[in-house]
Amino acid sequence: MAGNSFGTIFRITTWGESHGQGVGVVVDGCPAGLALSEEDVQRELDRRRPGQSSISTPRKEEDLVEILSGIFEGKTTGTPISMLVWNKDAKSSAYDALRDRPRPGHADWPYIARYGIRDHRGGGRSSGRETVSRVAGGAVAKKLLAESGIAVVGYVRELGGVRASIPEGVDISSLRDEAEKNPVRCPDQNVAEEMIRVLDRARSAGDSLGGVAEVVAFGVPPGLGEPVFEKLDADLARALMGIGAVKAVEIGAGVDSAGMKGSEMNDPILPGTEGLKFATNNAGGILGGISTGAPILCRISVKPTPSISRPQRTVDLSTGEAVEIEIKGRHDPSIPPRIVPVAESMVALVLADHLLRLRAAKI
Amino acid sequence: MAGNSFGTIFRITTWGESHGQGVGVVVDGCPAGLALSEEDVQRELDRRRPGQSSISTPRKEEDLVEILSGIFEGKTTGTPISMLVWNKDAKSSAYDALRDRPRPGHADWPYIARYGIRDHRGGGRSSGRETVSRVAGGAVAKKLLAESGIAVVGYVRELGGVRASIPEGVDISSLRDEAEKNPVRCPDQNVAEEMIRVLDRARSAGDSLGGVAEVVAFGVPPGLGEPVFEKLDADLARALMGIGAVKAVEIGAGVDSAGMKGSEMNDPILPGTEGLKFATNNAGGILGGISTGAPILCRISVKPTPSISRPQRTVDLSTGEAVEIEIKGRHDPSIPPRIVPVAESMVALVLADHLLRLRAAKI
Amino acid sequence: MAGNSFGTIFRITTWGESHGQGVGVVVDGCPAGLALSEEDVQRELDRRRPGQSSISTPRKEEDLVEILSGIFEGKTTGTPISMLVWNKDAKSSAYDALRDRPRPGHADWPYIARYGIRDHRGGGRSSGRETVSRVAGGAVAKKLLAESGIAVVGYVRELGGVRASIPEGVDISSLRDEAEKNPVRCPDQNVAEEMIRVLDRARSAGDSLGGVAEVVAFGVPPGLGEPVFEKLDADLARALMGIGAVKAVEIGAGVDSAGMKGSEMNDPILPGTEGLKFATNNAGGILGGISTGAPILCRISVKPTPSISRPQRTVDLSTGEAVEIEIKGRHDPSIPPRIVPVAESMVALVLADHLLRLRAAKI
Amino acid sequence: MAGNSFGTIFRITTWGESHGQGVGVVVDGCPAGLALSEEDVQRELDRRRPGQSSISTPRKEEDLVEILSGIFEGKTTGTPISMLVWNKDAKSSAYDALRDRPRPGHADWPYIARYGIRDHRGGGRSSGRETVSRVAGGAVAKKLLAESGIAVVGYVRELGGVRASIPEGVDISSLRDEAEKNPVRCPDQNVAEEMIRVLDRARSAGDSLGGVAEVVAFGVPPGLGEPVFEKLDADLARALMGIGAVKAVEIGAGVDSAGMKGSEMNDPILPGTEGLKFATNNAGGILGGISTGAPILCRISVKPTPSISRPQRTVDLSTGEAVEIEIKGRHDPSIPPRIVPVAESMVALVLADHLLRLRAAKI
Repeated sequence: MAGNSFGTIFRITTWGESHGQGVGVVVDGCPAGLALSEEDVQRELDRRRPGQSSISTPRKEEDLVEILSGIFEGKTTGTPISMLVWNKDAKSSAYDALRDRPRPGHADWPYIARYGIRDHRGGGRSSGRETVSRVAGGAVAKKLLAESGIAVVGYVRELGGVRASIPEGVDISSLRDEAEKNPVRCPDQNVAEEMIRVLDRARSAGDSLGGVAEVVAFGVPPGLGEPVFEKLDADLARALMGIGAVKAVEIGAGVDSAGMKGSEMNDPILPGTEGLKFATNNAGGILGGISTGAPILCRISVKPTPSISRPQRTVDLSTGEAVEIEIKGRHDPSIPPRIVPVAESMVALVLADHLLRLRAAKI
Repeated sequence: MAGNSFGTIFRITTWGESHGQGVGVVVDGCPAGLALSEEDVQRELDRRRPGQSSISTPRKEEDLVEILSGIFEGKTTGTPISMLVWNKDAKSSAYDALRDRPRPGHADWPYIARYGIRDHRGGGRSSGRETVSRVAGGAVAKKLLAESGIAVVGYVRELGGVRASIPEGVDISSLRDEAEKNPVRCPDQNVAEEMIRVLDRARSAGDSLGGVAEVVAFGVPPGLGEPVFEKLDADLARALMGIGAVKAVEIGAGVDSAGMKGSEMNDPILPGTEGLKFATNNAGGILGGISTGAPILCRISVKPTPSISRPQRTVDLSTGEAVEIEIKGRHDPSIPPRIVPVAESMVALVLADHLLRLRAAKI
Repeated sequence: MAGNSFGTIFRITTWGESHGQGVGVVVDGCPAGLALSEEDVQRELDRRRPGQSSISTPRKEEDLVEILSGIFEGKTTGTPISMLVWNKDAKSSAYDALRDRPRPGHADWPYIARYGIRDHRGGGRSSGRETVSRVAGGAVAKKLLAESGIAVVGYVRELGGVRASIPEGVDISSLRDEAEKNPVRCPDQNVAEEMIRVLDRARSAGDSLGGVAEVVAFGVPPGLGEPVFEKLDADLARALMGIGAVKAVEIGAGVDSAGMKGSEMNDPILPGTEGLKFATNNAGGILGGISTGAPILCRISVKPTPSISRPQRTVDLSTGEAVEIEIKGRHDPSIPPRIVPVAESMVALVLADHLLRLRAAKI
Repeated sequence: MAGNSFGTIFRITTWGESHGQGVGVVVDGCPAGLALSEEDVQRELDRRRPGQSSISTPRKEEDLVEILSGIFEGKTTGTPISMLVWNKDAKSSAYDALRDRPRPGHADWPYIARYGIRDHRGGGRSSGRETVSRVAGGAVAKKLLAESGIAVVGYVRELGGVRASIPEGVDISSLRDEAEKNPVRCPDQNVAEEMIRVLDRARSAGDSLGGVAEVVAFGVPPGLGEPVFEKLDADLARALMGIGAVKAVEIGAGVDSAGMKGSEMNDPILPGTEGLKFATNNAGGILGGISTGAPILCRISVKPTPSISRPQRTVDLSTGEAVEIEIKGRHDPSIPPRIVPVAESMVALVLADHLLRLRAAKI
């Protein structure tokens, strides 16, 4: 209710600002007996970390996680898992000039409108740095899902108008391996090179680019999701739309379904060895808000990074006058490559929660 | 948590199946002192009702609402408002043949997988009839919003590939008036006629069509939405994706934002008389998950009606064998025209809840 | 959050006022596959019903329950179970004189202070009639608990200063049978007669009496309860203190524990055939907020009925002047005998919820 | 839902074990603009700290709080406030002998039953050390309440059978001042000396004592509390019963109300300058679950410290055999003096939450 918690049974609560002491997360409701180490979490944080490649911000953030509670002799105990990452390379002076000048495309103005006060240093709570907490929490969710044979993988599908082609029926390990081979996290290597070129051009022009990322969950059993308001697709939509810069969420055929006929859209049902199978997966693995057993397919449209070095129009709130600003600082020219682990984390958190909730569905 | 409640402070709980005794909703947390009558609710239910026009199902459902509690001398008292609509024209025999044969594109199989039991008559809880409860609850939310000068209007933007053009800056009353003039709820009258023609063709062919609907909220003050997990856009995404048949949710520029540059996407900020103004509205009235004061713009992609009279492949669960089914019955050939009041209701519910939550943001 | 829902996974939402159209409850989260009929619920409602004996109010309320949803072919489907009881013998004219004169010991004044408006007819939402919904919901919880071998039984321990003696180690069926043999629901038959005599005297004097009720849950496995804020005893305390007229909740030794030494209070632990056993049960079956496997023992102190026919001082809100009122109408001279099924219901609801939550505690 | 969060709008989430890295709390939903410093929190933690006097455990814990987020330029920003206290003087070797031998009166066995795994060092999550987090969160709630003129004060009413007399109508500042003058936190100085004597005797005998604490909230406006399940008294009961060692919660006349007549119990209503007044306060400031404007009066019965150095019977879980244990270590001989700031904190948290919720009760 208070906004910084996510999930019902498996629930995370996050805290921290970009230029405060640190960021962190409390994971509550993780079942006891799960093997969990700082390495499990660090591995995921390293995928989100800035400065990991030529195309992301040159800010240096080591982002070393410390687990402060909830683990005993290498296993979860059922008590809250508190994780902490200290802030290091945070230069706040760069933001002083913007204190009274809300940046277009950023949350500056709405925070002032809502709270009447704002930590203006680097976006404060609305900074992408907040997603450290999500990824740390998501790492625990992924470990829990793995116990049930569920794997979540994300990648960049489109960037700056350049679109990758993903072969039908590609298996999960090759999808992940290919995506992690290049800095744009695109599993199509030829297209990845082209993406990097358009990114370089945009950066040189002081501009930024949007893109599309996809997250697929393999091994999800049928039955996850609670009708009618906590459907699996509804919760996924909330989880993904709540990531900064996401402007659209699609499940399965998504926006294309609007142009289809029923005879094209409906996935024919076939006999399966365990449960039923589907000839196609336009549904994206979800019908009536409940998983069908087919892979869960989510797609997000990510707007271009709002921080650009070109002049932009805004208002100085101390004078009420129109002004122009140019945003200095070290910003990613495009968000999708680094949003991938965040989006995977949110999908994993939703699935972990619903997996536990499924246990209460039958007598 | 249990899935059939929506909202935190302003909260609805719904119940009922398509072929049970009736459907209903309990509205909890509505502030005291709001004038509310059965007519206020009936007006909205009539917009959702089947049989209202040539293009919707010919099923006759009067859907008369009864308010059973929470109102005293014409005003809300702050106690739960219970509303009930009896089921009338429900023919369940048509579904007997489908008891063991899950319909493609429907929730039949996932319900069996989740619960091990299913009320197969007409979709049961997964039927579109469940949305009666949403519209009744939404009517109360709309009344509450109107007290604060907020209005929510929806319409069909695209149907069967035919796309309406909405002039920039159209005002809310003409948008609503034009949309309600034709049975497809499209504010562009010429396009509406074309939509009806493609619908007729699809129906004749035993098929169905998808489409796109938009919902706009006017008069929303800046400040609604709770970072970081209960952002306004995240909650809208959940609300809208949770409506049956919706496969994508977009806010503002939505999927188009993926192809834009930062210099195109960012809405320039201008001085305003109350708060700030924006030169464009690619953000759809939301930045950082909080309303900006600009109109809130939501867009949903709706898949074609899964019930089609063409032969479809499925499995007979009693034998495990592949079979073909044809779905009889009286079904809408396309969902968007009747989804409009449902989508408006969900948007109104989200806004009403966040409006009340905003009151606790400052000392 | 909005106040009229109780529970997390197994959750009820109640509605209705004493002199409105009816009262009802929506049970959400009940697992699928539970056999449930209207008779199961009616049996419990009959125990709560007014007019069931010489010592309760002579108001005639048949309180026939209708189940409107969530059941198919005699079993729960996992969807919400909506239950409705129409109001019948509600005379509201008796309350007109009290419209502006808040009754001492009643919720009249706080409702006005909170909502600025109040349905003054018979207490409205704050009436004991609201507990019909709790008992209906509790009946479903009891059925679910019975599947796991858990039984909940309540009785009157003390009334008007007359205290029953309950033999140590009495078994559940004789406890229930004895309690239901007399109108005060006291399992000690000699004491029950004395209770009835003091009640008659109080009524003749235009006054009312308080008392103590106990609820015991047998067969609760160890492990129920979520540290640290949703402990089993904490949730029981909320459940029971939230019943009108309850002013104290005790677990196990309760208030007596304050006068004990550690060497007296600690229940010695003994080897058991299933789990551990305890030589005594001062803990009331709960340690650290989690059930131990011993019977759960709760005790509530119930204040005397606030509606008495003696003159009482209050204020006329329309004039601001001090006045005296005498309350007419048909009121129970003492609440404990009829609170027993309500308290049992609340305990059952808490246990059902935690039983389902326990399923998510381990991998 | 997951058990370690408390509150709805104003909500805390706590984490940490007695012998882990530290303990902490995340406060979510605190309105923006509240002046808050580490000193505000430290002051309350110092009242809870062990080793503060001759009668509490000689363990040395400095318990210095660090605020990691949510404050900017000395004021809350509306974002989560994360607070951390490192564990220092934690000797875990003392607990090794008890690893497989659950201590009577402790949560050892239920944790094993629930989770199948347990951090046995010093009680782990079930240790009283967990209340550091509650007191830190409560300090923020108290600051918020002070802005509305609400003050919460607690004291020891009874200890080891020795009962203090509190004069009627004593004002809040003298109550607090007198209570803080002696190590047992009893506002009656003569009785305090006697309490200390019985405590010394119990400790010498290797035993422990129970007692009674009271918490009073002054300045609470009428209208707080949400019928029917989130009543103010119900939420207070949950808050207080959820503190370790509490076995009974009373509001106002509490258990004494069971022996009263209606004519004695009902508080006569009198005209007041702001709202109404009451001639007595048997209700403890709450009617129908909503505050009346009179002081809120809560009372808790606290069992004797379960850790005693006398021999106690238990079972060795590795062998299944009955054994005797003696608990070494440094334990408080009685909990009430140190439970006072914890109980105050829980009351403050409930009031802060309901104060914010009240804002949404009327249009």
